[in-house]
Amino acid sequence: MDHLPKVIIIGAGFGGLFAAKALADEPVEVILIDRNNYHTFTPLLYQVATCALDPSEIAHPIRSIFNKNHNIKFLLGELIGVDGAGKEIVLNTENRTRKLNYDFLILACGSETNFFGNQEIQNNSFDLKSLSDAVDLRNHVLRLFERAAWIEDYKEREAMLTFVVVGGGPTGIETAGALYELYNHVLDREFPNEDFRARVVLVEMQQSLLNSYPSELQEKAKKQLESLGVEVKLGSPVLTKSLDKVVLEDGTVIPTHTMVWAVGVKGSPMASLLGVNLGPDNRVKVHSTMEVQGTKAIYCIGDMCYLEDKNGVPYPQVSPVAQQQAKLAAKNILAELSGSEPTFFEYQDRGSMATIGRSRAVAWLYNKIPISGLLAWLAWLGLHLVTLIGFRNRLNVLVNWFWNYLTYDRSVRIILEKSNLIE
Amino acid sequence: MDHLPKVIIIGAGFGGLFAAKALADEPVEVILIDRNNYHTFTPLLYQVATCALDPSEIAHPIRSIFNKNHNIKFLLGELIGVDGAGKEIVLNTENRTRKLNYDFLILACGSETNFFGNQEIQNNSFDLKSLSDAVDLRNHVLRLFERAAWIEDYKEREAMLTFVVVGGGPTGIETAGALYELYNHVLDREFPNEDFRARVVLVEMQQSLLNSYPSELQEKAKKQLESLGVEVKLGSPVLTKSLDKVVLEDGTVIPTHTMVWAVGVKGSPMASLLGVNLGPDNRVKVHSTMEVQGTKAIYCIGDMCYLEDKNGVPYPQVSPVAQQQAKLAAKNILAELSGSEPTFFEYQDRGSMATIGRSRAVAWLYNKIPISGLLAWLAWLGLHLVTLIGFRNRLNVLVNWFWNYLTYDRSVRIILEKSNLIE
Repeated sequence: MDHLPKVIIIGAGFGGLFAAKALADEPVEVILIDRNNYHTFTPLLYQVATCALDPSEIAHPIRSIFNKNHNIKFLLGELIGVDGAGKEIVLNTENRTRKLNYDFLILACGSETNFFGNQEIQNNSFDLKSLSDAVDLRNHVLRLFERAAWIEDYKEREAMLTFVVVGGGPTGIETAGALYELYNHVLDREFPNEDFRARVVLVEMQQSLLNSYPSELQEKAKKQLESLGVEVKLGSPVLTKSLDKVVLEDGTVIPTHTMVWAVGVKGSPMASLLGVNLGPDNRVKVHSTMEVQGTKAIYCIGDMCYLEDKNGVPYPQVSPVAQQQAKLAAKNILAELSGSEPTFFEYQDRGSMATIGRSRAVAWLYNKIPISGLLAWLAWLGLHLVTLIGFRNRLNVLVNWFWNYLTYDRSVRIILEKSNLIE
Repeated sequence: MDHLPKVIIIGAGFGGLFAAKALADEPVEVILIDRNNYHTFTPLLYQVATCALDPSEIAHPIRSIFNKNHNIKFLLGELIGVDGAGKEIVLNTENRTRKLNYDFLILACGSETNFFGNQEIQNNSFDLKSLSDAVDLRNHVLRLFERAAWIEDYKEREAMLTFVVVGGGPTGIETAGALYELYNHVLDREFPNEDFRARVVLVEMQQSLLNSYPSELQEKAKKQLESLGVEVKLGSPVLTKSLDKVVLEDGTVIPTHTMVWAVGVKGSPMASLLGVNLGPDNRVKVHSTMEVQGTKAIYCIGDMCYLEDKNGVPYPQVSPVAQQQAKLAAKNILAELSGSEPTFFEYQDRGSMATIGRSRAVAWLYNKIPISGLLAWLAWLGLHLVTLIGFRNRLNVLVNWFWNYLTYDRSVRIILEKSNLIE
């Protein structure tokens, strides 16, 4: 491997992973960098948060994914600078600063939760963007139940056992449904001496759930959630959240210690390191070759980038877009190296799906065929199992899902305390 | 359940768990209290530390163990005071102080690592007494490998990849063997671009490993460890440990960032809350009925207590002793309630075993029959699988073990970062 062109990929989410895969065994040297040593299967974060799966079941060590591809090297580090003119990046690795040169750079740093500048909401809510977020939410929910077991005062206990999920997209729906099932089929049996009732309220500012779905499926999603036991509150955004209550704009007050914020995302803060003008939601504007506008040899893909389709509609921040853009960026880098013409991005949309609970889901296949209920749930199950990385992960997840389905048991509910690290 | 005698059990380790089980469905009200919401299967902590098992596979939610026993209630809290005269305990529950009355108290708070007063060693070493300890060690080892991948300097890298385990008992042997296997069959494949060599050194101050075993098995254990690749250093205690080296009393210097301290344990610090004179190693002196000497209605069992056999030899701090003492304490409480005579403790010793690695182990059945190698390893495997709590845990552990055995793969190697909790 002497003097092969060096491609650095920042981020091992769906985008970075697929870009690296597309460059495996090609005549380039690839360095994949992430601040974690694992890839997170983000679509199932809510299952970790609700005790259905273990963290390691949706996380896969990045090194093991590529240990057969000798042109791909992984390094653990965090991006802190990009010098586009000098073709150099600056990284923080365990408090040491290091510099690396590149010939091509692919930025795939993803997105972060968008609190729309509301610091009060940010300080008082949980989100579900990383494995740590999911573990934090799990610990918090389990601790609240343990605290409630000590409490005599009915009102105080009610607030502890009320969970508000904000956002009627797939993440919000899935989290609300799973939280309700966690309580209603698992934790209720474990607090037999207590007179517990838990509430889960899903709040969406629009008049319907699942904005981008046809109204038929929006209605079905709402009905399935309500048949499960989740309260759905449409048409009023959250005004404030303090320690023990949520206040909506229409004046509704919900006493609660838990608000999960699943309203939207914005581009990774790494975008600002580029020194270019950013698009909406802090996203990096790219050409349809996936090259960053106003730079050279820098590509940006996935949630982090901003690209509009022919009709001027921006591509959604979902994993299939990231995966397809990743493959295209890799292809265009190889094209440039071989002197060929670049290809332009066109999204192959296979539709979308959201699960609501045991045997409940909605799916809109190819944005044409609406399905719901058990059939959609089985489709969701199959798809997620197939796309999980690692045979053992799949096997364990299957065992856990099947076990949960049969018994409503969820063994993964340990509150793992933090402790201090010696380094 | 009106006015049944109230038995409070502190600690849900092997002792507390078996005491509660022995009191299930008896005419007493049982309150089991632990600072964690799960029971930890401590014999397999080293497998979590070496990426073979997930934390939740050796941790089982306490509530689910007893959800069929309606006279047993679990509460999450930490003991901070005992008023033996007033028959009252004081607890800290999420920063609130609470008091509870008891008719009988069973203390089963276990033990903590004994650093023999050496603060320097304590500050610079890892131990394996809790799930958090195991996760911390796992994160530390994985981070060292990631850091080493950035390092060019040979000496610096060598120190990062040298692991010193102190203590030639079962824990030390098992940890040393598992660390070596983690590196030599797993991580070495994942750093194919690096010229890595890892060292594991087991240090024991005595002239042999496994002190209480016959010399035949001591020799076999040493040979099996060395055949695996572990360096065994006998006859010299550790003098000091600083950030990047261990110094032994005989002058040997081992450059390393990691020392695992598995030398010994002492009674839980909770013992001091009793206000009685303590026995050796901070352990609570008990009568052979398991009642604490100098108190009334307070029992103490397991690692936390100190009791000598007929020959004046103290019972060892191992889980079979804790389990048998737990059953006896429960029996004697029920005897007192029914006006019968108490029974005195007699230990049924079924022997001991230690695993060394893949297909390597030693066992001393009933302290009479020595076995070693594959047969001992299979016995160890079967015993640990049978004594793990929860069917799903067993199934997952079996899948993971079998998978590891066939492939040398260990998927559970994610460095889960800590983050801040909102409460």
